[in-house]
Amino acid sequence: MSQTFQSLDDFRSLLAQAPNPDSAARDLAEARNGQLTKPPGALGRLEDLAIWYAGWRGDARPAVTAPQVVIFAGNHGVTAQGVSAFPAEVTEQMVLNFQQGGAAINQLSKTFGARMTVHALSLDRPTADFTKSPAMTEAELLEALQTGWNAVDTDTDLLVTGEMGIGNTTSAAAIAQALFGGDAADWTGRGTGVDDAGLANKTRVVAEAVALHGGQGDGIEALRRLGGRELAAMAGATARARALRIPVILDGFICCAAAACLEATAPGALDHCVAGHVSAEAGHGAVLAKLNKDPLLSLGLRLGEGSGAALAISILQAAIACHSGMSTFAEAGVSDA
Amino acid sequence: MSQTFQSLDDFRSLLAQAPNPDSAARDLAEARNGQLTKPPGALGRLEDLAIWYAGWRGDARPAVTAPQVVIFAGNHGVTAQGVSAFPAEVTEQMVLNFQQGGAAINQLSKTFGARMTVHALSLDRPTADFTKSPAMTEAELLEALQTGWNAVDTDTDLLVTGEMGIGNTTSAAAIAQALFGGDAADWTGRGTGVDDAGLANKTRVVAEAVALHGGQGDGIEALRRLGGRELAAMAGATARARALRIPVILDGFICCAAAACLEATAPGALDHCVAGHVSAEAGHGAVLAKLNKDPLLSLGLRLGEGSGAALAISILQAAIACHSGMSTFAEAGVSDA
Repeated sequence: MSQTFQSLDDFRSLLAQAPNPDSAARDLAEARNGQLTKPPGALGRLEDLAIWYAGWRGDARPAVTAPQVVIFAGNHGVTAQGVSAFPAEVTEQMVLNFQQGGAAINQLSKTFGARMTVHALSLDRPTADFTKSPAMTEAELLEALQTGWNAVDTDTDLLVTGEMGIGNTTSAAAIAQALFGGDAADWTGRGTGVDDAGLANKTRVVAEAVALHGGQGDGIEALRRLGGRELAAMAGATARARALRIPVILDGFICCAAAACLEATAPGALDHCVAGHVSAEAGHGAVLAKLNKDPLLSLGLRLGEGSGAALAISILQAAIACHSGMSTFAEAGVSDA
Repeated sequence: MSQTFQSLDDFRSLLAQAPNPDSAARDLAEARNGQLTKPPGALGRLEDLAIWYAGWRGDARPAVTAPQVVIFAGNHGVTAQGVSAFPAEVTEQMVLNFQQGGAAINQLSKTFGARMTVHALSLDRPTADFTKSPAMTEAELLEALQTGWNAVDTDTDLLVTGEMGIGNTTSAAAIAQALFGGDAADWTGRGTGVDDAGLANKTRVVAEAVALHGGQGDGIEALRRLGGRELAAMAGATARARALRIPVILDGFICCAAAACLEATAPGALDHCVAGHVSAEAGHGAVLAKLNKDPLLSLGLRLGEGSGAALAISILQAAIACHSGMSTFAEAGVSDA
């Protein structure tokens, strides 16, 4: 399952043929969970996470030893419409900041022992302004998906995908409206912090884009028309993780909009993903609800970079450390209820 | 401020004279936060946590290098009333499990690099059944407070207090009703997992206890009459942390009931504390609301042992790592909004 793909149809086929969790490992993990020295259910969601993780890894007593954070950066032609509080050159400046270790995601990755790699996608060639034409050609989309696919190290055992791209909450809002319907205002938020006039303008841009390109039953086509290179790369990395049965922690609005394109293409494509957090960006909670994902954290983050998902690495580490490290009632000589 | 105390009145005086945060360090931290390479407020509660922590530590760019988890165990005479799903000997069995490294809190402490110490408090002498008389004499309460006070290492820079004590959710519910009013049913939950008949019996026990001892404006007296040795030790440790300006992460219902006795005695006594999580135990959310503490996590835990608070060590570590490790806009050469 780790072969690459040569066309968008190949990519669709890979999604349709994605592997499922190991039900035997999952059942063994569930049985082990019932024997650990705690009242039944007393670790709440940590128990569910550990059992879910065990199924995907095919190991009833797994460990998280090699988490990876992959960051993708892209530039967006739609910034010509004045949709961001920050100038477009910040994308490249922040890539340098990632490389030099100065961003939030660097600190979070280091804190939880995750390796972090940064991939700048053709920053000198912004996508097309999707209020006028599709953001990407098929070839451009394919290349970005492949970049994401190839960014995942095969020995990774927990993946976070992050992004940087001035303008990309506009892209995410347009994708969300195209996939899930509703009005542009339902999905458009303040991003890095536009004011009321900026929000009204951004909402107009999203509405125009969706009016031009139409609602999309086809997630891959939504990604091409309304996405960006970094969103496509996140989708590619998430698909590769599935092929390798590596669990993924989803980040915020942009990450989830990109991931939603996979789910729209192949229902169940995000079964190996858990929602790391719900962000303060307006549409994120609604996208999570559409994806039927209950976020682990709700701390008002709205930074992107994979930051909320990286924070949630700690929750997965804790869940799996408890599951695999605790003694059973019999081992510890503790009386059961 | 690190001297011990010789009487309950001494302890009350220490609470009344507790130190406050360093406002200069706090202001410097707030200024630094505004210069970091992220949109203003984009790290949400992580920003507030870092600034709050900086104030308590008196350091505008602090680090968390020595978190400590202190676990206290005690036995409760009220178990004679059949309030728990587990037999009373489980308290001692779990202490052994802690010492051997097999409990959830061992895995959580290890995962986040916290040293962990376990203190068994006179397990062979359960407190009195508080449906019949006060749980502790003044001398017993004083000794337990001192055990907690002395358990905090002076080089600790982030403290979690945890507990083990079959019967202690009954004690916590009685304290909550005594301090905050309402009915016994408002505060009584299933603890380790009693059934409906067990819950009805436990509610009766709480109501009888509060009827006997009365509501309490005096938190220390509530702790003596309705508490337990491990609750008193948690209160003592929390007070010691305040004296040393060590921030504390509060755990679940029992931890918060014990801490509430300090707040009732000296308003503001918990200003150095943050709520690590809200548990699935029925009364915990209501106690947090009374304490005006917004929990960091909500993952359905109801284990005790300090587990929810230990999980939240990761959130503090992340917040402070971002605050102290990120580059400023000027350092990174990133354009501000």
